[in-house]
Amino acid sequence: MKPLSRGGIIAVGSELLTPLRVDTNSLFITEQLNLLGIEVVMKAVAGDDRDMLAHVFRAVLERVDIVVFSGGLGPTDDDVTREVVANVLQRPLREDERLTTMLRERFNARGFPMPMPEINRRQAMVPDGGRPIENTRGSAPGLWIERGDQLVVLLPGPPRELRPMLTTLVAGDLRARAAAAALVRRIIKIAGRFESETDQTLQPLYGKWAAADVPVAATILSAPGHIELHLSARHASRDIAEQTLEAAANDVVGVLGADAYSTHGALLERVVGDLLVERGLTIGVAESCTGGLITSRLTDIPGSSRYLDRSVVSYSNEAKTDLLGVPPELIAEHGAVSEPVALAMADGIRSHAGVSVGVGVTGIAGPGGGTPDKPVGTVAIAAMTAATTRSRVFRFTGERETVKFQASQAALDMVRRLLLESSQ
Amino acid sequence: MKPLSRGGIIAVGSELLTPLRVDTNSLFITEQLNLLGIEVVMKAVAGDDRDMLAHVFRAVLERVDIVVFSGGLGPTDDDVTREVVANVLQRPLREDERLTTMLRERFNARGFPMPMPEINRRQAMVPDGGRPIENTRGSAPGLWIERGDQLVVLLPGPPRELRPMLTTLVAGDLRARAAAAALVRRIIKIAGRFESETDQTLQPLYGKWAAADVPVAATILSAPGHIELHLSARHASRDIAEQTLEAAANDVVGVLGADAYSTHGALLERVVGDLLVERGLTIGVAESCTGGLITSRLTDIPGSSRYLDRSVVSYSNEAKTDLLGVPPELIAEHGAVSEPVALAMADGIRSHAGVSVGVGVTGIAGPGGGTPDKPVGTVAIAAMTAATTRSRVFRFTGERETVKFQASQAALDMVRRLLLESSQ
Repeated sequence: MKPLSRGGIIAVGSELLTPLRVDTNSLFITEQLNLLGIEVVMKAVAGDDRDMLAHVFRAVLERVDIVVFSGGLGPTDDDVTREVVANVLQRPLREDERLTTMLRERFNARGFPMPMPEINRRQAMVPDGGRPIENTRGSAPGLWIERGDQLVVLLPGPPRELRPMLTTLVAGDLRARAAAAALVRRIIKIAGRFESETDQTLQPLYGKWAAADVPVAATILSAPGHIELHLSARHASRDIAEQTLEAAANDVVGVLGADAYSTHGALLERVVGDLLVERGLTIGVAESCTGGLITSRLTDIPGSSRYLDRSVVSYSNEAKTDLLGVPPELIAEHGAVSEPVALAMADGIRSHAGVSVGVGVTGIAGPGGGTPDKPVGTVAIAAMTAATTRSRVFRFTGERETVKFQASQAALDMVRRLLLESSQ
Repeated sequence: MKPLSRGGIIAVGSELLTPLRVDTNSLFITEQLNLLGIEVVMKAVAGDDRDMLAHVFRAVLERVDIVVFSGGLGPTDDDVTREVVANVLQRPLREDERLTTMLRERFNARGFPMPMPEINRRQAMVPDGGRPIENTRGSAPGLWIERGDQLVVLLPGPPRELRPMLTTLVAGDLRARAAAAALVRRIIKIAGRFESETDQTLQPLYGKWAAADVPVAATILSAPGHIELHLSARHASRDIAEQTLEAAANDVVGVLGADAYSTHGALLERVVGDLLVERGLTIGVAESCTGGLITSRLTDIPGSSRYLDRSVVSYSNEAKTDLLGVPPELIAEHGAVSEPVALAMADGIRSHAGVSVGVGVTGIAGPGGGTPDKPVGTVAIAAMTAATTRSRVFRFTGERETVKFQASQAALDMVRRLLLESSQ
């Protein structure tokens, strides 16, 4: 059978044709297909209009080896993917009794006080020659349908259902149908720099990579508080592709040093958590303008209870004094948004919580509260251990949530550099 | 001329076919077209492959009145939109001398030390019968091409160039070509229910709305902790369309009662904040497994300092005792994840912070820490005022971050219901 090399993705859902929702499943699907060397050559979004979906499906099917659908597999009238695909491929739908039984059992197990509605039996319909793909996290099974050398895969829309299903296929049945060349990617994460300057600094590397035997493609992406360098390489041998990217990642670290905080796309909160675990340290955060975001990010990491046992959100001046012992005179003298107050907050949480690293963050997230002297986006951040102290006043731009995120990012990065430095 | 009513959007760019970038221009384009009553019925993404882009364009053109392109109008070989569109429509490209002059002037004005490269003259090519659309923020002009009753609009990819260009068209030339009907939307947000059951409960309304003089279309969307009902209506009079949705929103509230927490798509943290301001109350949160997320969400709302001045993240048992006065014996007797401990946490933050509403949340976010008795996802939540107390143990499913989000949602919803109840 001809190996699959060109893919098309169709997202189904009328909400994806409104100004409110964008199809993001296709990013994950692309990543997974790329792992097998399958390139995505077109993507489309259709609503629940049967005729339009059929038209889109035919257009995509005409040009690709594999079509992956996401969405439209639910039990309601709006869920038309199964039916439209069966029609276009001229494969009559039949109820799979084992699937119906499974659906009923799953429904009952969730403790609903009523039997499964008859409408849900739609989810047990399978086109002639197709086979269901198990969904361990939801009621909608996927479908796998071959058509000569072509393959059509139907997956449910919810990412938490779609992702494990596709991952399983990519490790098994889909791998068997793909060409040998692997397209491999790496994400390098960078803090404390500007995008344009980073891009310029890396230019010589881009040239070198492009001219190499196994070329590496690079794209730089940025958002406030956030720079990512995406690398990709393709080779018949997956190992060689991976080694090529490993070498490229080392090139980047050689140029950017500690500004490159992960060469494997890790979150900053995970990098900080790993450093704390490695050094057997604990952390406490005194948050004002970030309102708990830093602690929430730190505790997004499984096992974070090893290094974090408490934090404080001290939004008002009184709270800073009550909970952290920040002297009211200090606030009166320097203002709540100042390096001395951030330092006192860091010191307060460090001694009150009895932890190795104390962090203090105080600023103006906006939209109100700014002054000519301290405009919206001004944030004072301090981090300290028994031996070392760092502090700085930042000026972030953007909306309230963007300021909060950038402040949390800067605080975590300050902790990371403090830990790296104190180990030297 | 037949007014434009069905639209298609094509985003052009190979980076949009990687796992890294999603087309977001289409959201803005959709919003703008909707303002004119033009419904978007399909969207597509293509790379810089000429043949594939032509195929996609033909497929879209076959079913819509207006096609809007974004991207692929730059000066390089990779920028193929102009050429492909001209080919498909069989309109030879000709250089517009005035455009060339303008491009040269713009280039020189930017202070480059060299004359404009010849390659940039591509941006001055206009298909027969087409006309350029001025771009005040970049070098790539747009293109407006009529084909019988159909219209094709080409816009550059950078949002800061595309947005003002489209806004100008919508206020002028495009408005003149559209039907008078406005397409209006509303989002109703729902808590404390399951999607399928909500959908079933609303069925009679769907039927009534579909049969009305001004029909209302409804789509239900859900994610863990989250149900949204999206309503839309179209009418020549924008006011009538809005009134129709207002009546439909009231229908929903009539059926779902307090479970519908917003009829205007407001965030739950905003609804809670508004209730607190309205009643002149303050709030403090004692967070364990949510790790600061609830407070971070509450402080995402501008002006939240009016009702929140402190919160505590008490991750460990010791922190619960130190910061909130939870008796160690209570934890020993019931376990840290229990209603009595959640209540003691809520009571502790309420009295320590001197606020009207105290909230306590303690649970197991996973992936570790679960027991047969209290599996991962078990979360005890309590909320109390001087007069009233609520508490409950929830069982959420999903990954760590999903459990955290659902717990924060349930806690905010509990506060909301407590406030609604205590005002009656």
